[in-house]
Amino acid sequence: MPYLRNTWYVAAWAHDLAEAPLGLTLLEEPVVLLRDGDGAAHALAGRCPHRCAPLAKGRIVEGALECPYHGLRFSFDGRCVHNPHPGGEVPDAAVRAYPLAERHGLLWIWMGDPVRADEALIPDFGWLADPKWEHVNGSALVPGNYQLYVDNILDLSHASFVHPALRSNAWTRGEREFGRRGEVVWARYRHLDDYLSEGIDMVLGSAGRRMDNVVTVDWHAPSVLFLDFRAGEPGTPEEALTSLPSLHAFTPQDRTSTHYFWAVGRDFRLGDADFSAGARAAFLAAFELEDAPIIAAQQKLMGEGDFWDMGLIHLAGDAGGIGARRTLQRLIAAEETEAR
Amino acid sequence: MPYLRNTWYVAAWAHDLAEAPLGLTLLEEPVVLLRDGDGAAHALAGRCPHRCAPLAKGRIVEGALECPYHGLRFSFDGRCVHNPHPGGEVPDAAVRAYPLAERHGLLWIWMGDPVRADEALIPDFGWLADPKWEHVNGSALVPGNYQLYVDNILDLSHASFVHPALRSNAWTRGEREFGRRGEVVWARYRHLDDYLSEGIDMVLGSAGRRMDNVVTVDWHAPSVLFLDFRAGEPGTPEEALTSLPSLHAFTPQDRTSTHYFWAVGRDFRLGDADFSAGARAAFLAAFELEDAPIIAAQQKLMGEGDFWDMGLIHLAGDAGGIGARRTLQRLIAAEETEAR
Amino acid sequence: MPYLRNTWYVAAWAHDLAEAPLGLTLLEEPVVLLRDGDGAAHALAGRCPHRCAPLAKGRIVEGALECPYHGLRFSFDGRCVHNPHPGGEVPDAAVRAYPLAERHGLLWIWMGDPVRADEALIPDFGWLADPKWEHVNGSALVPGNYQLYVDNILDLSHASFVHPALRSNAWTRGEREFGRRGEVVWARYRHLDDYLSEGIDMVLGSAGRRMDNVVTVDWHAPSVLFLDFRAGEPGTPEEALTSLPSLHAFTPQDRTSTHYFWAVGRDFRLGDADFSAGARAAFLAAFELEDAPIIAAQQKLMGEGDFWDMGLIHLAGDAGGIGARRTLQRLIAAEETEAR
Repeated sequence: MPYLRNTWYVAAWAHDLAEAPLGLTLLEEPVVLLRDGDGAAHALAGRCPHRCAPLAKGRIVEGALECPYHGLRFSFDGRCVHNPHPGGEVPDAAVRAYPLAERHGLLWIWMGDPVRADEALIPDFGWLADPKWEHVNGSALVPGNYQLYVDNILDLSHASFVHPALRSNAWTRGEREFGRRGEVVWARYRHLDDYLSEGIDMVLGSAGRRMDNVVTVDWHAPSVLFLDFRAGEPGTPEEALTSLPSLHAFTPQDRTSTHYFWAVGRDFRLGDADFSAGARAAFLAAFELEDAPIIAAQQKLMGEGDFWDMGLIHLAGDAGGIGARRTLQRLIAAEETEAR
Repeated sequence: MPYLRNTWYVAAWAHDLAEAPLGLTLLEEPVVLLRDGDGAAHALAGRCPHRCAPLAKGRIVEGALECPYHGLRFSFDGRCVHNPHPGGEVPDAAVRAYPLAERHGLLWIWMGDPVRADEALIPDFGWLADPKWEHVNGSALVPGNYQLYVDNILDLSHASFVHPALRSNAWTRGEREFGRRGEVVWARYRHLDDYLSEGIDMVLGSAGRRMDNVVTVDWHAPSVLFLDFRAGEPGTPEEALTSLPSLHAFTPQDRTSTHYFWAVGRDFRLGDADFSAGARAAFLAAFELEDAPIIAAQQKLMGEGDFWDMGLIHLAGDAGGIGARRTLQRLIAAEETEAR
Repeated sequence: MPYLRNTWYVAAWAHDLAEAPLGLTLLEEPVVLLRDGDGAAHALAGRCPHRCAPLAKGRIVEGALECPYHGLRFSFDGRCVHNPHPGGEVPDAAVRAYPLAERHGLLWIWMGDPVRADEALIPDFGWLADPKWEHVNGSALVPGNYQLYVDNILDLSHASFVHPALRSNAWTRGEREFGRRGEVVWARYRHLDDYLSEGIDMVLGSAGRRMDNVVTVDWHAPSVLFLDFRAGEPGTPEEALTSLPSLHAFTPQDRTSTHYFWAVGRDFRLGDADFSAGARAAFLAAFELEDAPIIAAQQKLMGEGDFWDMGLIHLAGDAGGIGARRTLQRLIAAEETEAR
């Protein structure tokens, strides 16, 4: 049981689901996302119960999803509602419907017991939808287990080695702290009166100036992270620092590949499309072109054995990742116990 | 034991085997097809018994197949007949020779007990060689288990969803009947006084006219099908309808990939090469570019488990495919019993 | 245990290791080769003990190899010597260091017990570094088990079938002898007063003339071969024949792929760069473009079963390959016994 099920995973950016059904694999299960006539999003199992055809290749016909192979139609709650063949008896069949919530521009899917799907459990990413903020975003299918991607965000020290544009004394000389708040595992980096990284200088216009820098990361089980990067003139109170909030949500495709959804926000230069395009290109390069290859190589060298049995050495900076892994392990074990 | 062995499979179109040996994998076994000096076709195991080199990469030398690695030569019945090395003692070795029959432009191979190979058991496709008929044909290595391809031909209702040019009321509103005649499983579709599909209208020149339409499919174990598509003016006696006979022969490469051999005949516009080229392109698109991808996706979502254990729902139109699967299963079980 | 460990394998041509670390997989283990400030070559395990990142993607910083993910640094003998993170406590950790010897232009690695690594055990390829000789060389990652490549060199009869330019009566009509000298298995081919192959004629300038030809092959366990091709005017004493010595060293990447290192020497036309370029292209074509594909096909048809259980037939010319396989099997078994 490598996955937590009674939880919300990001399935897609809402803007990536238009009229055509969207097929993807989540937690090793084929899923199809689709919108009804009112634009409401739904998620169904992606395999037709008749002959296993891929429902994601179907189309919406008269308010139902038509299988692309023999034309059975399924309502948005998964019931078979039409059989186009002679006789036309509708079989008593259904595909699984997954609870789906559209929130803050993201589609969140619940892969566990539908009865327990409570939208109040979705972590708050209100800034993604708040007009006072603007954000750039992206998504990519990346190689490597989702927990390796979680480790990566909770241990920001990698930035000085993996991301030339984000190299900073903050990671290697600053203060670090890790802790837990309920089921949220957090990391906090603080480094005052020093230069920021080149990449951040370009975003904040702070080149050549010393700044205070405070970064916090909140991990929400199983794999949704909020990273708040803050900086400002030395002496600025922490809550008055300029903030670059970011989302890093990782949804397992399977044990060795991950859907990565990311966004980075700002509350300045709103509406500056050129600036946004540059920022997007820079963050995409960091997350998809610099992080993903090293994690892919890591996964390959790690193999598929148990993380705890590999005899790895742990450093102080791993406290966040280890805390998240242990918390997740406990939550998965609790689900298994309950299921028995 | 997923394959029936004492039966004829199509190995190749005869015109695809010229002077050079032709290698392919059938039923997970490497096979090489070759012609002797008189043009007679033979089939041998494709793996040299000396060091497993691929005999299909060899050439015919002095009436024998020379291994491309160390030059041992094998006669057309499989015996080692020449050792080119110092000393030159010919080893008492042989590769398996499979019975092969050239019939109606096809090469039929018998992968079972050679003693039982009876050419009278080859299904009759005389129209492929009859000068009153002309046909277009093709072959392709396609993804997916061969039984999925059999299902596809026995349940023609897929045409309205998978093949835009073959969409027709005949499949969804007509009469259907399925049955058995000896070991032959058959399907029959009948739909009178209605429009045909666009694609068929182009072949028959029937655009804008209502026609009678009768289609029969005969399945010969394990996976050779004869499909007779007939149409004509309303009221025409069935035997007087214009016929478009077709062959659909599926030979497993392995459990998840299949050699597909097809042909579609006609007894009109004989010698019209442009018409033939257009028809060939259209049928190739339907069989190789429309059917194969959906069956590939179906195979992937189905996995390699047992068909009967997947909890699939069955519709009335599956009676042909299910009949063929059960018949084949019985024939394979009988072979296994006999082999013990 | 498919590999002999207490032995020297070729890891690379020395000239292929410059300042940047070089990563490769040997005997299924990730290895990184690197040079220290004095140019001395070292070999370390290629996987960081912290989070399994690929050390071969790191760089040399202040005389140590920096992990590309979180910046831990490892000395050339494998100890962790620097932790760049706040606090900076250096963990008591190390990666395995493999004995490495630079000898005759090759880097030799010892994958077994370091205590037993004796450079005197490296087979003598002095001609590779002797100014009286000049050589062309190459290396390639080729498909197929390393023992198949050993078989190939010990049974030169394949040349007449696999290498059109090396076809010669020497292989099929000459004398052959196989034997053992200590742990060295040898083959010897002798054919007098006949034409050489076209390819060799081009190298020796002997086109149209009958020559004496003596070829010896020495196999050193597990997979390093010295081939001495000699030819000259009929009647020339054997030690006075012109020699084309060659190296064929095979290092397993894993069970079905092999690093092939080769070189062919001469003691004439020294310094003739055009001649060298032509010779290199010709030998590269033979070894990498003609041998490798047939061995790849052989591996595929052979599968991964045990060589002795495949029911293969053996010819007189296989005595060398079989002798090497048996010797290697005995040496591996002895290591296993000792390890218990």
